[in-house]
Amino acid sequence: MAEPVFERLCLVGIGLIGSSIARVARKRADLARTVVATARRPETLARVRELGIVDVVEDDPCKAVEGCDAVILCVPVGAYAGVMAQIAPHLAPGCVLSDVGSTKGSVVRDLSPLLPPGVHLVPAHPMAGTEHSGPDAGFAELFDGRYCIVTPLPGSDAAAVEKVREFWRRCGSMIETLDPATHDRVVAIVSHLPHLIAFTICGTADDLAEETKEAVMKFAASGFRDFTRIAASDVDMWRDVFLNNREALLEMLARFSEDAHALGRAVRYGQAEFIEDRIRRGRKIRRELIERKQA
Amino acid sequence: MAEPVFERLCLVGIGLIGSSIARVARKRADLARTVVATARRPETLARVRELGIVDVVEDDPCKAVEGCDAVILCVPVGAYAGVMAQIAPHLAPGCVLSDVGSTKGSVVRDLSPLLPPGVHLVPAHPMAGTEHSGPDAGFAELFDGRYCIVTPLPGSDAAAVEKVREFWRRCGSMIETLDPATHDRVVAIVSHLPHLIAFTICGTADDLAEETKEAVMKFAASGFRDFTRIAASDVDMWRDVFLNNREALLEMLARFSEDAHALGRAVRYGQAEFIEDRIRRGRKIRRELIERKQA
Repeated sequence: MAEPVFERLCLVGIGLIGSSIARVARKRADLARTVVATARRPETLARVRELGIVDVVEDDPCKAVEGCDAVILCVPVGAYAGVMAQIAPHLAPGCVLSDVGSTKGSVVRDLSPLLPPGVHLVPAHPMAGTEHSGPDAGFAELFDGRYCIVTPLPGSDAAAVEKVREFWRRCGSMIETLDPATHDRVVAIVSHLPHLIAFTICGTADDLAEETKEAVMKFAASGFRDFTRIAASDVDMWRDVFLNNREALLEMLARFSEDAHALGRAVRYGQAEFIEDRIRRGRKIRRELIERKQA
Repeated sequence: MAEPVFERLCLVGIGLIGSSIARVARKRADLARTVVATARRPETLARVRELGIVDVVEDDPCKAVEGCDAVILCVPVGAYAGVMAQIAPHLAPGCVLSDVGSTKGSVVRDLSPLLPPGVHLVPAHPMAGTEHSGPDAGFAELFDGRYCIVTPLPGSDAAAVEKVREFWRRCGSMIETLDPATHDRVVAIVSHLPHLIAFTICGTADDLAEETKEAVMKFAASGFRDFTRIAASDVDMWRDVFLNNREALLEMLARFSEDAHALGRAVRYGQAEFIEDRIRRGRKIRRELIERKQA
């Protein structure tokens, strides 16, 4: 049996992702010897106590992180700066500070300035999730076979980076390493823009005249249904993701928008070949995903 | 055992939908006593002979429809006018002419002018499909529990309309009736626009710089994957759908585009409340679908 990666791990925030980490740690003893959880809302902490998925529940984040050799932020990325201002003075020297946020440039921006000397910042992004949220939504298998992107900074402590990698490997993830800027562009197109589109098309449908809307709901089983699944995601999390990956998201929205209008124009003017070419590219991408066993 | 709805049914085109109808007719004897299939490509007809899923395979569409009391067009909607010009003189008086196309205004436009007296046009749209195509892709359960929208015209023969309804009921579908224009607007938002978006975002990803594209493929498992599933659909079919539902599709693209840019603008200017409102509307639509057991 391997030694635990961390002796005392603090999860700051314990929703879908945090509570899934806690459940992995319950299942296998080599992740963290002791797991501490803290959260802003007393109801969440009460529920975590009931669920019995961590060793220590602590309502004061400053006390929660004290003496920990690892702290993982599992709150919406918009809350990072505020949380860091609270906990920074209480982080132990040598502590590994990581997170699970879907944006990484903003994490570096918000956490680096307050980082105490000797504390190692190693941001990470487990690419896993469901449309559900809260401590009841988590499960130990959430990260199985999913990518976790680790985005170390130039000069990051190599041992700390390897600990974070090993931590996620033991959670079942496949580890990849990217710089924060590339990470943010990639997730903007594969995840953030699809979510923006899904939220939007639901709103567009909602705005249709009452008679049509009724029919829309009735017949939504085709293409639309897939879009609404991802549109059911957590409000606070996605608001923060959009606001904290603004540049990359707006760039991808602009590119997409140009392309959508080019296709719309081809439809207007009956340019069959242009339309066929676009459809073929969609099929090509799909085939690539199938070959990579990602579809 | 009920009498068959039709004595002699001709399927003009026998891809995913046509071959699924043929398979239902093989499975239950009360759909059509004899099924005739015709198609443009000799390879398709050869394959249908091998599969043994119809009673008669006929390469001349004019001969195929002769003596039939029902003809269902199962070719891409862009081919309807050409097919109709060929078969119209050979349609028997009293014959029910129907189809399975995803656009209905264009069907009325293309078929009505050539309709011989005594032939009953009853357009229909089974809302079922997969991303696969061709006679091997069909299966008898394709229509089970899915909606079939029947769009009779003012003055349509009531007995003919009821036959088409009963035909689809026996295929397992839930029957709904809409006028062609409402049908076209509804499918534009629930199906055609989502497909246009899916084709587009795949192309946008494909255009990204090589380095990012590689990462895009690797991490496409999140939101993007759902989009690529529908982007894998048949080229000819979707080109024709877009071109033949132009007005409704461009209207929905314009509405969606305004909404997407409004959300993009809120991201740019950090308008958290506006963003939250849009996300909540997505969740609301999702909940409505779940309540209707459509999700």
